This record gives sequence, C-alpha cells and structure tokens, in this order.
Amino acid sequence: MSEEYRSMWQNLGIDLEAHDALLGVLGNFYQDIHLSQKDRPEGMKYFDFVMSEVHGLRIKELVDEKKTGRRIIGSYCVYVPEEIVLAGNATLVGLCAGADFAMDEAEKLLPRNTCALIKSTFGFKLGKVCPYLEVSDMIVGENTCDGKKKAYESLAPLVSNLFVMDIPQMKSLQGRALFRHEYNRFKDAVEELTGVTIDAGRLKEAISIVNEKRKAIHRLSMLRKADPSPISGVDALLANQVYFYDNPKRFTDSVNLICDELEKKIETRQGAYPAGIPRILISGCPMAVPNWKLPWIVETSGAVIVAEESCVGERGTRNLVDNSGDTVDELMDALVDRYFQVDCAIFTPNNDRLDHVREMARTYNADGIIHYGLQFCQPYLMEAIPVTEELKKQGIPTLMIETDYSMEDVGQLRTRVEAFIEMLQ
Amino acid sequence: MSEEYRSMWQNLGIDLEAHDALLGVLGNFYQDIHLSQKDRPEGMKYFDFVMSEVHGLRIKELVDEKKTGRRIIGSYCVYVPEEIVLAGNATLVGLCAGADFAMDEAEKLLPRNTCALIKSTFGFKLGKVCPYLEVSDMIVGENTCDGKKKAYESLAPLVSNLFVMDIPQMKSLQGRALFRHEYNRFKDAVEELTGVTIDAGRLKEAISIVNEKRKAIHRLSMLRKADPSPISGVDALLANQVYFYDNPKRFTDSVNLICDELEKKIETRQGAYPAGIPRILISGCPMAVPNWKLPWIVETSGAVIVAEESCVGERGTRNLVDNSGDTVDELMDALVDRYFQVDCAIFTPNNDRLDHVREMARTYNADGIIHYGLQFCQPYLMEAIPVTEELKKQGIPTLMIETDYSMEDVGQLRTRVEAFIEMLQ
Repeated sequence: MSEEYRSMWQNLGIDLEAHDALLGVLGNFYQDIHLSQKDRPEGMKYFDFVMSEVHGLRIKELVDEKKTGRRIIGSYCVYVPEEIVLAGNATLVGLCAGADFAMDEAEKLLPRNTCALIKSTFGFKLGKVCPYLEVSDMIVGENTCDGKKKAYESLAPLVSNLFVMDIPQMKSLQGRALFRHEYNRFKDAVEELTGVTIDAGRLKEAISIVNEKRKAIHRLSMLRKADPSPISGVDALLANQVYFYDNPKRFTDSVNLICDELEKKIETRQGAYPAGIPRILISGCPMAVPNWKLPWIVETSGAVIVAEESCVGERGTRNLVDNSGDTVDELMDALVDRYFQVDCAIFTPNNDRLDHVREMARTYNADGIIHYGLQFCQPYLMEAIPVTEELKKQGIPTLMIETDYSMEDVGQLRTRVEAFIEMLQ
Repeated sequence: MSEEYRSMWQNLGIDLEAHDALLGVLGNFYQDIHLSQKDRPEGMKYFDFVMSEVHGLRIKELVDEKKTGRRIIGSYCVYVPEEIVLAGNATLVGLCAGADFAMDEAEKLLPRNTCALIKSTFGFKLGKVCPYLEVSDMIVGENTCDGKKKAYESLAPLVSNLFVMDIPQMKSLQGRALFRHEYNRFKDAVEELTGVTIDAGRLKEAISIVNEKRKAIHRLSMLRKADPSPISGVDALLANQVYFYDNPKRFTDSVNLICDELEKKIETRQGAYPAGIPRILISGCPMAVPNWKLPWIVETSGAVIVAEESCVGERGTRNLVDNSGDTVDELMDALVDRYFQVDCAIFTPNNDRLDHVREMARTYNADGIIHYGLQFCQPYLMEAIPVTEELKKQGIPTLMIETDYSMEDVGQLRTRVEAFIEMLQ
C-alpha cells in the first residue's frame, strides 16, 4: 500500500497494524475464492480493482469528496434510501460488517449470543479498521431487528452523529405512516447535514441515478437465467456487494459493461461452470464483504448459485422508484412505495417473501434452495422454519443452514452442502 | 383431582396424562419452594389455595363464565389492557409460559435458540396442558420482541382467533399514534367478540377495578420496604403472578387482607427472614408460574428479595389509569398514557428503565441487584450490559444472570448467587 493511503488511514484514526492484518486476510480470501476461478468474464477485472482498492482508492475518493464540502453518510441497511442522500448532494456507503474482528472487545458491549453481523459492526469500530465508518459524517441506524435496535444504543456513544430511523413492524396504514414520517425526518437530517435543500428536481435526478443502478443489477441477474450461467455466484454476489460501496454511476456503467460481455457468452454457451450442474438459489440473511463462506462452499461442491434472495441481492434491489411525480411529496411517497415493499423478516406477517422465493426459484430455474441463516438472527431463523416447510411441501428441495462468520464449521457445512447437491443431480 | 375436573379438562382437549405429570411437578415445586417456608403469613393460604386450584377451580370458574355467555381472552403480555377486556364484559387471563414442556415438539416450529418463555408457550399448546389457552375465546399476541412477533406467525395456525396487536419500537408521537390505533382496534375486536359496546361508563368501571388491583399490589410492595421484610420474595412474586390469573376483585380483596396482616407483622418486627440480611432487587425478564428457580436460589442463599423490576412485578403494575375522563376517547387516551409508560426493553431508547431500577433500589433499600435475563431474550440481554455497567458505576453491586427454565444450572447459579450475597454482607 502506498504511503499516501497509510497517512490517510492514520488521519482517519485507523489502527494501521490491525488494518494491515485485516487487508492481508481479505486479500487471501479474495485470491482463493474469486481470483482462482478459471475463465472469468473480463468485466470482473473492474470489480477485482474495486476490491483491491476497497479501503484505498475508494476511501481516497470519499476523502476528496469531503474536501469539496460533500458529506458522506454510512448505513447498515437497505431501508436507508440512497435517493435522499444523493439528492442532498451527499454520498451513501455501506458500512463494514462481514467479518469477525476484535470480537473480545465487541463482546464487552454485546451479548455473546448476538448475530455475527452486529458483532462485526462493533468489532470494526472498536478495532478501528473500517475507514468507511471513520470517513462518514453521519451514521444511519434503523430499528429493524431487536439486535440492531438495541445495539445502536450502545453504538451511539462510540460514534459521532448517529441518526436512528424508526421502522414499523407491520405493513399497515399506521406502519406506513410511521415509515413515511421517518423518511421525512431523514430528509430533514440530510438537509441539515449538507445545507442543501432537497427539491423535486434534485430528488428526481437522484431517483433516476439509483433506478439506473438497479436496472443494471437486474440486467445482470436476468443473465443468470441461462444454463450454463455466464457468471459464477461468488462473482455475481461480489457485484451485489460492491453496489453498496461504489460510485453509483460508475457502478452502473461497469455492470452494464460486464452484461454486454455476458450476453455474448450466453450466445456461445460459455459458462462459469458446465451446463446442467445443479442450480442453487440462496435465500436468507445478507452477506456483507467478505462473508463469502457459504457461496464458496456451494460452488466448490459441484453447483452454481443463480440468484440471491437477500438484502445483498434481489430483496435489496427489487422494484424501481416511480419517478413521474412533480413535487417533493409525490416523490417521497414514491420512495416509500418502493422501500416499504422490501420483504425483510422483521415484518409480520411477511408472506411476500415466500412468494418471492418461489418466484425466484422458477425464474432462475433453481434446482434447490439453500436457506442461509446467521446464528442468533431471530427474524430470519424463525421465518426459515415455515418458509422451508412450505417450499418442501411444494416439492422444492431446500436445505437450511445456520452459521456465523467463523471458519470452524467449513468442513461440516461442506459435508451437508455436498449431500444436498448430490441429491439434486 | 376430582372426576369433574378431569372431564372438564378432557372437554377442553387437555392431554390428561401429560397434564397429570405437569401438575405433579408443579405441586412438588410448590411444596419445596413455598409451603416449606416457616412462619408464612396466614394470608398466603389464599394464594396456596389458588395455586392448588390453578388448573382446577379457576378453570371451572372460567368455564362457568363461558356458559353465561361471558368471553375469556388470553394474553402473554402486560401491554394487553385488562380494562378494555373487562369493559367488554370479558375476562382476561395470562397464558401458561413458565416451564419447559414438550420441547421436542416446540423445537420443530421454533429455532432452538429461542427464549424459554416463547418455547414454553408452544410447548404448552402442543403438549395440550394449558387449560387457560384452551378455554380462551381469543388469544392476544403483540409485536413486542422479534421472538414473539415471529412466533405468533407460527402460533396462528395452532389456535383459533389469534389477535395480534402491533406495538411500536420508539416512544415518539408516531409510535404513540400507532399504539393508540392498536388499542382502538383491540377495543373493536373485543366488542365484536362479546357483542358488548364499550361505552364510557363501562370503561370507567373497568379502569376502577384494575386501578384497585394495582393499588393493592402497590400496597403489598411498599410493605416490603420494612426490615425485616414481612413477606418472602417467593411469596410476593407469587402474588404478582396470581395477579394475571385470578378474578380481579377477589384478588384485590385477598391482597389487601394479607397487607393488613403484614402491617401488624411490621409493627412487631416479624419478618420472613431475620432483619439485616442482604436485600436483593431482581430486575429483568418476567417470571411466569412456575419459574421460581432464581428467587428460590436467592432466598435459600441468605438473602431476601425485596422487589421485582419485571413485567411480573413493578414494571407491569406501576402507574394507575386516570379515570377522570367522561368520554370513551378520553378514557382510551388515559389508558394509552398509562400503558405507553411501561418501560419494556423492546423500546429504544429505554432510559426510563434504568431510572426505575435505581429508584426501586433506593425505595426498597436494596443492597444489591440481580439482573435476570432469559437466554436468547435479545432485548433484555442487550439492555443488561449498559444497565448493569451504569449501576456498577454508581456503586450499586450488580450480578448479571443468564439462564433458562432448566434445572441443570442450579448448582452453578447457586455458587454465583452465594458469592454475590456474601460480598454484600
């Protein structure tokens, strides 16, 4: 790493030694899981570059943006609307939460029985290894699950400018009114942070930028319907992960570029893996960088992942925002219309999710579904039981996995995944 | 048990054999924990009778009420307003959730990592051993914690007439509006069930009945300020538990009667235990019948419990409802004013709770606090860390316990509790 980056990290308060160790592990993972694949699309080179510079060039870009007066807003959830952030002339970034780090420190503030994603949030903060968190002028929390809701109370004293957005638990009229009110409150907070008044023009432009980003990732998803799939699941997941970090316009262009290439591959039936191997839909908890454990196991066990029913995947990117309104109110309503459809397991009832899982299994010709639950994630683990029960009733083979970020269960997981894949052949 | 009860249970669909086993265990527990105490207040004989008839006479009363057309409503939470139920000419009962039963069956519908209270709810239903559940014409669930919220989705197909009340996560104006709306919706549901229109007169009378019940239990609590405390913690907890089952007027009279006796005991300095022994405040998760494990360990380790900061305790009974309004709307607002103050850990932030813990420690002259957390109860376990941290900072000795309903950890718990109590001497 260049000296320029090191001094940038130091200025952000990063613990350089710990951070070097983290980047070392991340680099090895990336080499083993992504770079070791054969005949990858040329377009993945962009994502390889992004990942190699994920704490370097991208952070420098954000620091440079800050120098021009632009504000950076960090978030942990797909309910935080990027459109409002962009309309306020700010940049939204997803915050690090995909690896165990400084767990000893995190477990002083959180119960041991807390999901790995939440513990990771604390580990990255306490271990001082997340430059995205340190560069953010505002951190947005949200009352989604109990774990996050209560964890933000303990995170608040550790960060400056934590804004917590309340989220309802039912998709009732009252729930929607609360959600709408919170989006207004968030807009006000962004305006206060940036000094920019979010008018209809700005909001329309921002909606258009994010819609284009979603269209690009939808286009990528649809190409995975082909057999053989022109892209591996681990690479497609990576694109879905980079969605949260990258400059949105550049990301859109890069995804469209790889789609052009993948379309040609489909014409010539060039796949990431041979045609005819079992096709897997992953459904459940989000997978943040570098949580690639399960996808890697699946794709090194003779199957290909063809879609992700996940916040880092179609649950997070499904549906565009109607951009036809002419007033801020109309456009804010349109935002709420779109985001309130996201079918996170925190909502009750959450029947849409089962419908989407089935629909995705059909759309992507999945032979089987692996339900991925993070240990101690109550909403998804609880919903997993009726969801997998119903899928099995309908004759869709389903495997339920419960795991965390550690590597201790890799052997055991591989045995179960292999047995499941063998059953699908 | 009389043949009459057996045929009543059979008619309710109770599994007689399993139920016999449950009552056997319950009876032994009660003998060992409550009846074995020396010099108990005479007034406890009423509660002994209630407990000996908890699945007998009380159920017969409810069955008899049903025969007259009165409806029975079962609930799992202190946010369900008894006033509305009584105003609708119905009876509210707390549902069984304090013991492990049919865990194998429950764990088919719930993740293993679910708190004992929720698993117990399912175990009692699946094992067919809760006559309160079977006698209820309506079951009220509430979206409090993630565990309960998602569990009600799986409970719905197992019971008839499940009404789920939505609860907000923040005590904002919007949260209050949602809560208020849900109380209206609950009132409508009760009216539909009973055919009774809830007018201001009925509501005022119901509020008065429940206020009297609360005043009686407050009176009992206040008597525990004395040293020696005139009543043991296990007996006082029992009264707080019976609060959820008994006929409210009879309960009020019985509590006032024992209070008369306890006042005399205070005058003559007769205590449940000697004066001067360490006084403990229990704070945290609710303890449903027959979850007496921790109180029993504490009071057989040389200390006395002087108060419960719990839903089955002061958190649940604190504050009366203002009965001065003249319209249904005013009275409903007064109900919301009272219930919205309940400081459950599902709310964020929940600073009132820490204030109440400190206030109770002072009021009851507690020498130490034991924070009781049910394993996998995310809201209380997460809140426990900052709460106990703050209490320790203020010099209040605090012990954090995490347990479930099993008896496997009794030895370990006793060792920790004894060490804590020794430190207080």
